[in-house]
Amino acid sequence: MPERNQWSKNFSEWFHRVIFEIPIYDTRYPVKGTGIWMPYGFKIRQKVIEIIREELIKRGHEEVLFPTLIPEYMIRKEGEHIKSFEDQVFWITYGGTSLLDVKLALRPTSETSIYPMFQLWIKSYSDLPLKIFQIVNVFRYETKATKPMIRVREISTFKEAHTAHATKEDAEKQIKEGIEIYKRFFEKLGIPYVISIRPSWDKFPGAEYSIAFDTIMPDGRVLQIGTVHFLGQNFAKPFDIKYMKADGNYEYVWQTCYGISERVIAALISVHGDDHGLVLPSIVAPFQVVIIPIVYKGKEDALSICKEIKEILEKNNLRVYLDEEKEETPGSKYFKWELRGVPIRVEIGPKDIEKKTVVLVRRDTLQKFTISRDLIIEEIKKLLEEIDISLKERAKNWFNEHISRENDLNKVRDILSEKGGIIEIPWCGRDTCGQDIENKIDVRVLGTPYELYEKPSGLCANCNIPATNWIRIARSY
Amino acid sequence: MPERNQWSKNFSEWFHRVIFEIPIYDTRYPVKGTGIWMPYGFKIRQKVIEIIREELIKRGHEEVLFPTLIPEYMIRKEGEHIKSFEDQVFWITYGGTSLLDVKLALRPTSETSIYPMFQLWIKSYSDLPLKIFQIVNVFRYETKATKPMIRVREISTFKEAHTAHATKEDAEKQIKEGIEIYKRFFEKLGIPYVISIRPSWDKFPGAEYSIAFDTIMPDGRVLQIGTVHFLGQNFAKPFDIKYMKADGNYEYVWQTCYGISERVIAALISVHGDDHGLVLPSIVAPFQVVIIPIVYKGKEDALSICKEIKEILEKNNLRVYLDEEKEETPGSKYFKWELRGVPIRVEIGPKDIEKKTVVLVRRDTLQKFTISRDLIIEEIKKLLEEIDISLKERAKNWFNEHISRENDLNKVRDILSEKGGIIEIPWCGRDTCGQDIENKIDVRVLGTPYELYEKPSGLCANCNIPATNWIRIARSY
Repeated sequence: MPERNQWSKNFSEWFHRVIFEIPIYDTRYPVKGTGIWMPYGFKIRQKVIEIIREELIKRGHEEVLFPTLIPEYMIRKEGEHIKSFEDQVFWITYGGTSLLDVKLALRPTSETSIYPMFQLWIKSYSDLPLKIFQIVNVFRYETKATKPMIRVREISTFKEAHTAHATKEDAEKQIKEGIEIYKRFFEKLGIPYVISIRPSWDKFPGAEYSIAFDTIMPDGRVLQIGTVHFLGQNFAKPFDIKYMKADGNYEYVWQTCYGISERVIAALISVHGDDHGLVLPSIVAPFQVVIIPIVYKGKEDALSICKEIKEILEKNNLRVYLDEEKEETPGSKYFKWELRGVPIRVEIGPKDIEKKTVVLVRRDTLQKFTISRDLIIEEIKKLLEEIDISLKERAKNWFNEHISRENDLNKVRDILSEKGGIIEIPWCGRDTCGQDIENKIDVRVLGTPYELYEKPSGLCANCNIPATNWIRIARSY
Repeated sequence: MPERNQWSKNFSEWFHRVIFEIPIYDTRYPVKGTGIWMPYGFKIRQKVIEIIREELIKRGHEEVLFPTLIPEYMIRKEGEHIKSFEDQVFWITYGGTSLLDVKLALRPTSETSIYPMFQLWIKSYSDLPLKIFQIVNVFRYETKATKPMIRVREISTFKEAHTAHATKEDAEKQIKEGIEIYKRFFEKLGIPYVISIRPSWDKFPGAEYSIAFDTIMPDGRVLQIGTVHFLGQNFAKPFDIKYMKADGNYEYVWQTCYGISERVIAALISVHGDDHGLVLPSIVAPFQVVIIPIVYKGKEDALSICKEIKEILEKNNLRVYLDEEKEETPGSKYFKWELRGVPIRVEIGPKDIEKKTVVLVRRDTLQKFTISRDLIIEEIKKLLEEIDISLKERAKNWFNEHISRENDLNKVRDILSEKGGIIEIPWCGRDTCGQDIENKIDVRVLGTPYELYEKPSGLCANCNIPATNWIRIARSY
């Protein structure tokens, strides 16, 4: 079993090393807070996108693509929204050498570019619900320290869904569907999460309320990996998005939106990793199997058998890489493909040829098996399933070990600075008290559990009046 | 056979109507020269992207994704390049309310963002050739009249490949490969083209020479749909992209780049269309078959048979839409799906149920066939092939009717203003003479044939000294 020492103790270093050395994402691009998706990283990203796309389409969302630029008057239409994004917007002021009449914002998110079109597209109740999504780049002038994939100025992989409904009830049902979609998505990736209703002072600007998915990174800090927002009629009114009801009267639509970004990929890389590098669930692995021929002088027939095996596996819909490189030793290849997290390595040497066997090595445990060559397809398929289950469980167990309940704020602070994670504490339900906790022990309130919990029986950990709910506390990215 | 009157005589109107009514692309977005890919258009776009992606990957190109923003000092590094793009660059000057230290350009194309990284990635001859591509949005502040998909300020679908090589010969071989890739791509889409070596005064800024694919739109005007550029060492020198040779010496790399954009989709829509709307080759059709149940009161069983047929066809890897809408008449559905260009319509009414038949209607000719239900898979597969061949041929024939040779410039002008197309004329080979022709009769010189032609035997159509080559002339977008 590979160690996870570097992984948890020097997580930031581990993460930078993994994404740089594989490479997945090159941060040396000369604009702060941006990076380049390298071929291997691009392939992982593509698989992740495929999964969310499929989940959305299955539930009736249609994919579209909007322009990047938003005229200033448009982005200013909803007051809360622009107030919050004001400091984060990149502004285009010149086209060539001409000063533009209307300044253009690089979208920081697309509500204000999409909803003017909703106003044109939605005429009557028969146009509802309208459920669309797009996968785009968005831009935020972050002033805090940037971190690759996690806090960037160009979010390159922003999946945002936007929906409009005839009634409040329909929109609230949609919130549930959005949450279901993300649950399935994260479960497929084996990323553990909690779902919290964000506190009122931390909701999406313009939303009535926001629900968020958080995971815990190896350093114990929490990463927000998905959000679902109930917008009510807050955008429908300034953008004048009305529909004609069956009775001929007009009403504003009810809206929701929900988004994820490449933070999901950062989480995917992080929660499954170990000191040897990446460990990928088979669903997103660019290659599920890597074949390494072990060739001795005079015994070159390993290669032709490897080619045969590659073909057979590919016919069985597996993604396979045959590492034929002649200048590199098998040992150096093991190291390279372990770093890249390929779930199964197949080794074939002279003995295996003799005995009609192959050696399988699973990436998660590094256990070796020698199996009969005839059984390779069944064995690999079985092993991939086992690896996926085991990765998911390991991540889940680690996650659960980092969630606890406390009611002493000093202890909360100590736990969070020592091992991090998420702590649930009893809370009176008052915003002031929540913000007080944030300031007192320098943490972030993630919100109250979305999953139904029994209410706490004790007193608020901060003010000692009877608690009405649990509230989740963490150090966050 | 549907007419092609509106299609050719009011092409601009035809094009706008088709993309708006289907809808494919909504141009009402409040930033000039931009548009929204609507769900049906998005699906066509996705299919087109899949084809070019496959062709590039098959030939060893790796997909990456670069940031959108280019620092000013970087975009200015190659003198010719920025001189030409100077008037077209959108500039970001503010992040939030702060004036940026370094102005950022929205990429108009990505040479100057990619090549600084080539400088880091390429160390020795073993890193070469380097062949990458990305599919991104690029931005150009067009001052000419914009046209949806054809002349836009945000090019949403820019596929650009960039390669680096050890020798000039390798780079020139790559030019040939680039051309082969585009040939296959356009052939798969059934888009006819000629390949021309652009004249020296119309090459890509920074290139040594440029080769372009042009097609002819239904109004007779020529549309550039793909370009392949030999960059020589023009970028390698300012960006200092050197590699160590086997002998330990250093040399600048040799580079090529080649690109296509959503103009390909505009061409695809245009060259195959008719007065009923779109006609799509099966390879890019979001739905290859639409099934329309013809339901009479008391005879509702058509629907369940339609569902069965849909399932059978989908199992045979066909993309099928069953139009179950109850409020709409079959006639209105025919109209709608003809507009959308679905290659085959299946109609099933009470008589068909009785006789175990189905009616097939092919979109290109609108011919109807009644066939036995048992034969549906074979018949549809055969018919799709026939339609694809026939579409390609029709487009090719129309295209060939619009290419001719002339040596009288007055006639050239008359033909181009009456029916458009491409005219090849004998030319002395001097730039001044080519530019003189452009000015005299207000046309564009597309360049000399890339395909090997016999040289003309007569005199230059402009200056009457002996011609050395053909030159292609057209009115262009």
